[in-house]
Order: sequence, then structure tokens, then C-alpha cells
Amino acid sequence: MKPSIVWQTDFGLKWGAVASMRGVCKQVDPELECYDLTHEIPQYNILAGSRELIYVEPFWPKGTIFVSVVDPGVGTSRRACVALLKDGNYVVTPDNGSLTHVAHEVGIREVREIDETVNRYPGTEGISVFHGRDLFAYTAARLASGIIDFEGVGPRYPVEEVVLLPEAYEMAVIKDGVVSGFVSSVSDPFGSIALNVASDAFKEAGFAYGDKVHVVLKNKGETYYDDFVAYEKSFGFVEVGDAILFDSSSNVIELGINQGNFKETFHVCEGSDYGYTLSK
Amino acid sequence: MKPSIVWQTDFGLKWGAVASMRGVCKQVDPELECYDLTHEIPQYNILAGSRELIYVEPFWPKGTIFVSVVDPGVGTSRRACVALLKDGNYVVTPDNGSLTHVAHEVGIREVREIDETVNRYPGTEGISVFHGRDLFAYTAARLASGIIDFEGVGPRYPVEEVVLLPEAYEMAVIKDGVVSGFVSSVSDPFGSIALNVASDAFKEAGFAYGDKVHVVLKNKGETYYDDFVAYEKSFGFVEVGDAILFDSSSNVIELGINQGNFKETFHVCEGSDYGYTLSK
Amino acid sequence: MKPSIVWQTDFGLKWGAVASMRGVCKQVDPELECYDLTHEIPQYNILAGSRELIYVEPFWPKGTIFVSVVDPGVGTSRRACVALLKDGNYVVTPDNGSLTHVAHEVGIREVREIDETVNRYPGTEGISVFHGRDLFAYTAARLASGIIDFEGVGPRYPVEEVVLLPEAYEMAVIKDGVVSGFVSSVSDPFGSIALNVASDAFKEAGFAYGDKVHVVLKNKGETYYDDFVAYEKSFGFVEVGDAILFDSSSNVIELGINQGNFKETFHVCEGSDYGYTLSK
Repeated sequence: MKPSIVWQTDFGLKWGAVASMRGVCKQVDPELECYDLTHEIPQYNILAGSRELIYVEPFWPKGTIFVSVVDPGVGTSRRACVALLKDGNYVVTPDNGSLTHVAHEVGIREVREIDETVNRYPGTEGISVFHGRDLFAYTAARLASGIIDFEGVGPRYPVEEVVLLPEAYEMAVIKDGVVSGFVSSVSDPFGSIALNVASDAFKEAGFAYGDKVHVVLKNKGETYYDDFVAYEKSFGFVEVGDAILFDSSSNVIELGINQGNFKETFHVCEGSDYGYTLSK
Repeated sequence: MKPSIVWQTDFGLKWGAVASMRGVCKQVDPELECYDLTHEIPQYNILAGSRELIYVEPFWPKGTIFVSVVDPGVGTSRRACVALLKDGNYVVTPDNGSLTHVAHEVGIREVREIDETVNRYPGTEGISVFHGRDLFAYTAARLASGIIDFEGVGPRYPVEEVVLLPEAYEMAVIKDGVVSGFVSSVSDPFGSIALNVASDAFKEAGFAYGDKVHVVLKNKGETYYDDFVAYEKSFGFVEVGDAILFDSSSNVIELGINQGNFKETFHVCEGSDYGYTLSK
Repeated sequence: MKPSIVWQTDFGLKWGAVASMRGVCKQVDPELECYDLTHEIPQYNILAGSRELIYVEPFWPKGTIFVSVVDPGVGTSRRACVALLKDGNYVVTPDNGSLTHVAHEVGIREVREIDETVNRYPGTEGISVFHGRDLFAYTAARLASGIIDFEGVGPRYPVEEVVLLPEAYEMAVIKDGVVSGFVSSVSDPFGSIALNVASDAFKEAGFAYGDKVHVVLKNKGETYYDDFVAYEKSFGFVEVGDAILFDSSSNVIELGINQGNFKETFHVCEGSDYGYTLSK
């Protein structure tokens, strides 16, 4: 079977943009299968797109072609590229930081700039605002169908030139049993907040299921949450309405409320302004 | 052809959860086809999930594998199961009430608990918060692809032990031409409210298209709506802005406003507090 | 391969309506592939549905079967039809104005009224509120699978009788280098507003990339925006927060703000009340 094409954008599903990209793929090859990762990446938020990609990428068969379009610089001189990852998957994307997490956690084997003279949907040469349809969909479909191979994408360039957003993978400091870091994401739809500490590192620091952990949250140094929270396997181990620390589905520590919404209750945002410490 | 897998969750589509479940299915067998019922079941609302499932289930080919994940107790001792319905469809779900409507309206032929030692996605043994991906997607895909048969899901347990939410199918009382019941659902996106009386029962009680029906709505006994409403085949038979009683697409009586929104206009919620009477 | 079925409705994705339509298609023929254009057309907005269809239709392979259901008159005497377009695509829809844009821009070769005695999903004869499932899905699937040919839809009627909404394609007046028109759409999710002037006509009127264009916007004759705006190829050519005129992905002139939202910032709506002039 031909590889699947898996899409994420910040276009939303209220209009036909996604369906027009899919139509281009079906025109290239009616046998191609397209799937949605999400089309609700917060608009222009390249970092969020990069993070969502690494959340999903490992669970698809090797050879899958991901297309990630969060592209505030569409039509400017930023590169349009296809990256071949070290695990055999591909990412078709503007090279604007969207590859940050996969570069760091999977690794990029080789990257090529899309040659617009070959890999642009015919008839769209005058349009500069929709590379998702005119460049990325068309190139991804040609690659998936075997019309072009990876070399056919366009010229290779050094992996070292790929644009990265290094704040994406800054991890917590663990010293003397105290974990200090910041909130790395508040995108969980159930309102849990992700801390920048891996579950394994947290356990190695001496924490275990059943512990009551001293959690302090600060916004620009000012404490807005200070409580003892149970570290448990899953929500149902604490009462409805109680806070809980748990291992997320991507193996980092998250802080939530059983059937509640931690993010909204305590107005938490992501980023280095939103610090935390975890101790016994 | 292999059976389709049809999904519903309360995860939303703003992130990659659904796409990661789909990737697991594609890893098990790239030929499998996954479809979405909805991913916007109100969070933690098991009853709403049960109801949406029965709305869709009858319209798919027999042998279809539905996966329903509204699972506030994920990772606790609640059972993870696969139910074989009397019509030949399957439902993969936490056994927490999600099977209520299909049990009542279709019937369960046999139910089996998922054996995690066999049917868990390898490498996720340490994760307890995402059975949708690690248990339900993996099991559904193995069943759909024929890698396991129904016995291969895990041990059978008595159908009588399936968790049910009996308020889900309490129907209106009809006496002396008066129908008394409560609002069973306000989930219609056009703002109509569903009453717990079947269209057939309503007609047998003596009501016919063209009738002006005396509708009284009460919240905890207090009247908030009292008017005469036409019972017609469809919206277009009354003026824009007028209320209408009609047979819903699942053959119960609904109350709406032509090109308006009854639920929002009159602040209606679902449940036994929101009573009604219909009379001539 | 059998043609794809591509869907748009105003049903939303919060419930099972779309999945039940898809199930009907799969019952007719499990090999059929269904895709979503969008299910978030603003409710009852036939004009918006007509416009979204023409945005996507040209990008799919010829022979594709589009189903468009924005149907406030469901169950009344309005016709349910299938139109064969001049480019070989089909549209299954209520004949209520939904065909306006494709009729104008692609052309209708032939139109047939759906014969309910043949092309209604069995068992739904008593239901009048869900033609999307009971009539349109069933007919589209039978046509896509080859069970019926186009003649099998039902009796032909004159193309001249198709309901059109002529305001949909009223274009700007261009005189002495001044373009005068109105806002034709504010549906862009990035908040840009579409003006009713084609990119080609704008260029022929003497405007070129790099120009500073004098833009005046009026609501019922009262000016609410008066500024000079750069006409550029894409957003990234102006500063973040600056307004920009650009060629949209469907080749009309749009007015936006780089990484901002013009529509919300200036409270713009669509329609002839929202006039504009563009001059040098």
C-alpha cells in the first residue's frame, strides 16, 4: 500500500481549505489516503504545531508522510521543504521551526527544499498565500504516489540549517530532590498542564505513586498555587475535584484536576514565565 | 472487505489524540478504515455518549466496530470491554454506562473484558491515562483485521453485569390523551429539544399532523413555557420564528423553532427536572 | 476507482448526523470513500454553502459527487436534485440556491429531481427532517457505486428552473482607476475580508504589487476605514500588525492584517451594505 498522508494546519474546518488540499491529492492519485492530525493548531503558533507533530508521529507506520502547515511567512523567502526523519517518516512543511520537536526527538536524516518549478500545482503560479494546497499538498501527493522519489522534491541542503526553536526542549532542573522548571504546554483539552519533566526523570528523582508532592506554581516569580498533590496513575485515584499529578500519554508529568480543569481554574499559561517546583 | 472502525470520544479535535489512535490502527493493519462519529461528546458525559451511539449505530453495515471512549475512570478498576450486539455490530468501550442505549434498544449478545496482557499496544505499559490509544484502538484494530477473533479479546463475563444508566430510557406517561414526561436531550445543534416520547406513541395517543398541541414546559414544577404549537412534518410548514413539534430523525417528538433555537431561547436543559405535558 | 463523495452541511460535528449519513453510504457500498468539505456552514446560510462549494469543487478529480445540505426547507415542496456540472462533477442538494456559484462559474449541463419512490433509504418514509441521510446520502451512494446512473436519479427538469441567488456574483464597478464594490465574504478564518473584485480585473485596472492603495470602507455610506494599504503577494511582505491587500487563494482581492484579524478589528460584515473603494 502507498503511505498515508497525515495533515495538520491552523486553518480550521469551518471552510473548504482542507478539502481543497485533499482534492489536490486525489487528483494526483485517487488511491492516496489522507488523514487529519488536527486543523486547530492555534493560529501562527509554530511551536504548538511542532509539539503536536511529535505527539502523533511515533504512532504511525514508518514511511508515513506528515504535512504540517503553520505558515505565517507563506510566500516569503522562508524555505518550503521535505524532511526525511531518522525513523523513515517524512514531514512536508515550511522550514520555520515546525521541525523543532521531531529534529530533537527523532532526528532528521536529510532535508530538501521543494523545487517550485516542478512541484507546484499547475495553474497556481500567481497565488502566493496558499502553499498548503499549491505546494505542500501537491508535493506530498506526488511523493506518496511514487511519481517522484525523495530526490525529486528538490535540492538537498544541510540539516544544520533547519530552523529550530530551542526553548521547545529545555527541561527541568533536578537537584537535591527538588524539580524546578516551567509549564511547557497547556493544550490538553481536559485542562491539565504539562510540566517540562519526563516521567522517568521524575521517578528517578525519588517520587513514586501514592506520594503527596509539594507543588508550588509561580507566575514571574509570584506564587499563585501552593499545595500538596497526590502523584497517581490516573484521575480516578483521587476524588472528583481534587488535583492530581500523573504520567501523561506522552510520558511527561502533568498536573490536572479529576473531572475539572486546572488550566482554567488557576489561569495557567505556557512558557518560562510560568515556573514550578515539585518537592516532597 | 474488513469492517470499518467508527470512533466517538470526548477528546475534541484540537490536538493529536484522535490521530494517534488512528495511527495505532494503521500500524496494526494499513488496510483498516477508521471513521469519526464525533469527538465532541460533552466531557465526562457517559449518558450523552451512550445516546449518540444508538443514534448512529443502526445506519452502519453489520459487523462494524464502534469504539466509544468517554472514560472518566480510565486506569481504575472499571472494566475495559468489547460487546457483541445482537445485530452483529461490536462496541469497544469502558464498561461504565456507555453501553446503556445499545443494550436497551439493540441488545448485547455477549461481552468480554479486554485482556491487557495480550491486547495492549506494546511499550505503553507504564501509561494509565490513554486507554483510547493503548487499549481500545489496539484491540479494535486487531479485531477488525482478523488478528484476533472475538474470543481473543479476553474472558467473557455475564451480560447482566454490564453497567447501565436506567434513567436513559424512562419514557413519558400517556393517560387520557395527555403526554407527561421530561426533556431527554438538548443536543440538537439547531436548538431543538427532544421529548421522551416516541413518534409512534404520540400518534397512537391521538395526535396528528396539523394539530395545534397545548405544550406546557416546567422546570422543577414551575411553568416557563405555555403555548399552542403546530405538530407538522418539518420546519418549513410553519413560519420562520414559530415553534413546531415534529418527528425527529430518530423517531421521537422534538420541539423546535423554524430557523431559531428553542433550547437557547427558553434556556432548556435535559433531565427529569425539565418536565412537559402535551395535550389537545 | 469509484468516484469520491464530498460532503458539506450546516450540521456541525458535535453529534452523529454526519456519521449516520456516512453509514448509509457504507451500507450501499462499503468501497465508497466519503470526505468532508465542511460541516460548519453557518446554519441556514444557503449563500455561504454555495460559495464554499465553488471554492473546493475545481480541485477534485472530475466525476466527484459533491453533497451540499444547507436545507431550511427540508420536507417541503422545494426540489431535491442532482446537478451534472459542465466539468463532469455532480452536486446532490436541495435546489434552493445552493447551486448558484457552480451554475455561474462552471455551468450546469443537466439537472434531475430525486425520485423518492426509488431513491429513499428504506424505512425512513415517515421521517421528513433528515433528507441528508434518507435522500441525499442514499442517492449519492447509489450514483457513486453505479447502482443507478444519472438517469436513475429521477426526472430531468429544465436547467433554467434551478434556483439562483444572483447577488452572489455581482462584481465591482471599475471606472477611471477607481474600484467600487462591496465585501463579498468574511469567512476567512484568519480574519481577512474578500472584496468582489477579481485579482486579474484589479491588475488590469492598473494596480501592481508594491503599490500603496487608498482603501475606503463604508457601512451604509458611513466611512469606518480610510487608509493607504500595500498591495503585496503575501502577508510576510508587510510588518506584523499592518494591513495588506493580496490575491486570495481563489484569485479575488482580499484585505487582511499580517498575523491579525481585519474582520474583528473593524467589525466588518459581508453584503452590499459594506461598500468599499480602492484607488491610487
